[in-house]
Amino acid sequence: MTPTTHTIAVLGGTGPQGRGLARRFAQAGLHVVLGSRSAERAEKAAAELADVTGGHVEGAANADAAAAGDLVLVVVPWDGHAELLAELAPVLAGKIVVDCVNPLGFDKQGAYALPVPEGSATQQAAALLPDSRVVGAFHNVSAVLLEDPEVASVDTDVLVLGDDREATDAVQALADVVPGMRGIYAGRLRNAHQVEALTANLISINRRYTAHAGVRVTDV
Amino acid sequence: MTPTTHTIAVLGGTGPQGRGLARRFAQAGLHVVLGSRSAERAEKAAAELADVTGGHVEGAANADAAAAGDLVLVVVPWDGHAELLAELAPVLAGKIVVDCVNPLGFDKQGAYALPVPEGSATQQAAALLPDSRVVGAFHNVSAVLLEDPEVASVDTDVLVLGDDREATDAVQALADVVPGMRGIYAGRLRNAHQVEALTANLISINRRYTAHAGVRVTDV
Repeated sequence: MTPTTHTIAVLGGTGPQGRGLARRFAQAGLHVVLGSRSAERAEKAAAELADVTGGHVEGAANADAAAAGDLVLVVVPWDGHAELLAELAPVLAGKIVVDCVNPLGFDKQGAYALPVPEGSATQQAAALLPDSRVVGAFHNVSAVLLEDPEVASVDTDVLVLGDDREATDAVQALADVVPGMRGIYAGRLRNAHQVEALTANLISINRRYTAHAGVRVTDV
Repeated sequence: MTPTTHTIAVLGGTGPQGRGLARRFAQAGLHVVLGSRSAERAEKAAAELADVTGGHVEGAANADAAAAGDLVLVVVPWDGHAELLAELAPVLAGKIVVDCVNPLGFDKQGAYALPVPEGSATQQAAALLPDSRVVGAFHNVSAVLLEDPEVASVDTDVLVLGDDREATDAVQALADVVPGMRGIYAGRLRNAHQVEALTANLISINRRYTAHAGVRVTDV
């Protein structure tokens, strides 16, 4: 599967993370459909992205975006994750669904991982979407860097998690289209939790070092 | 606190990870005391390390090593972690204790994170050692690289976790004495679990890519 010939849907595409990923995919020449709860808001954000990237970006309500995508990224807030996926399960059947959601809580001391009954957001998605090919990825990429037009190269690895080799290969290839970014297979769905939760550590690092931290895997 | 003027104890120092860390600290000129359940085995491993590094390495039973160390690394198997720390609590009082233990299970599909009632091995150590200054670190460093005499520079970051700034600073400084290694503050104890568990992902990466994977934090 070559991601360049496919349509990438980004559910929750009007938030910073989704919009940032959509921007990079559009810049790389991919056809992107932004999804949002409000079709109008999605269309507005898509028009802005099409304008700044010169790419092919459309906006739609989440369900329509999901239907349009061959590969569907889920970048919605954790709150509402389960509800949205349960609702979209029929339209997501047969598709590669990439969960990018970090179940985090925040208090005065910063971010921390929330417990998830299924183990991780990605495993929750897999449980709710038995007919989809669920992969976890793009958890640790800074939205600030993704959205910064001055950042030409997003120098970070994308840890890709899943039990379906063809699907993880496709998501690695998707990460690879973004300059500086590299998709690395990082284990099965049962090892997704810690990759999601690691975002809390990156937030601690950002605060201590005034950075937009990401992860590189060494020796690969 | 400058680690170079202090004695570093490595409990579980005859296993690959402990021995590898001890080797690098000895090479950097630090005074190291290897601990093991068997004083004899510890003395034998220490003599070998002193020989290959030309450094100052001694061996002792874990309790004696713990007593000798200003800064005490815990690199024992997860099985027996709680028991050893409960036993050594009095002798570890007032010291900086660095938990390096990854609670992992293994099956045909590779490694996975074990649930820990306290949240993580590091938090278990903190609960068992209320009078020590507990820090988590050195979870993701490849024992193979540490032990390889051909590897001059261990190019990896050490994520350092803790609630005591002076203690985490000391452990970062300890990581910094090893060429190529860099100590990075990565959050509070409550965010230790995912750093320990990430070792399961690195094991998956090693298997897929035939590598000795580690982690670098970008933009820091």
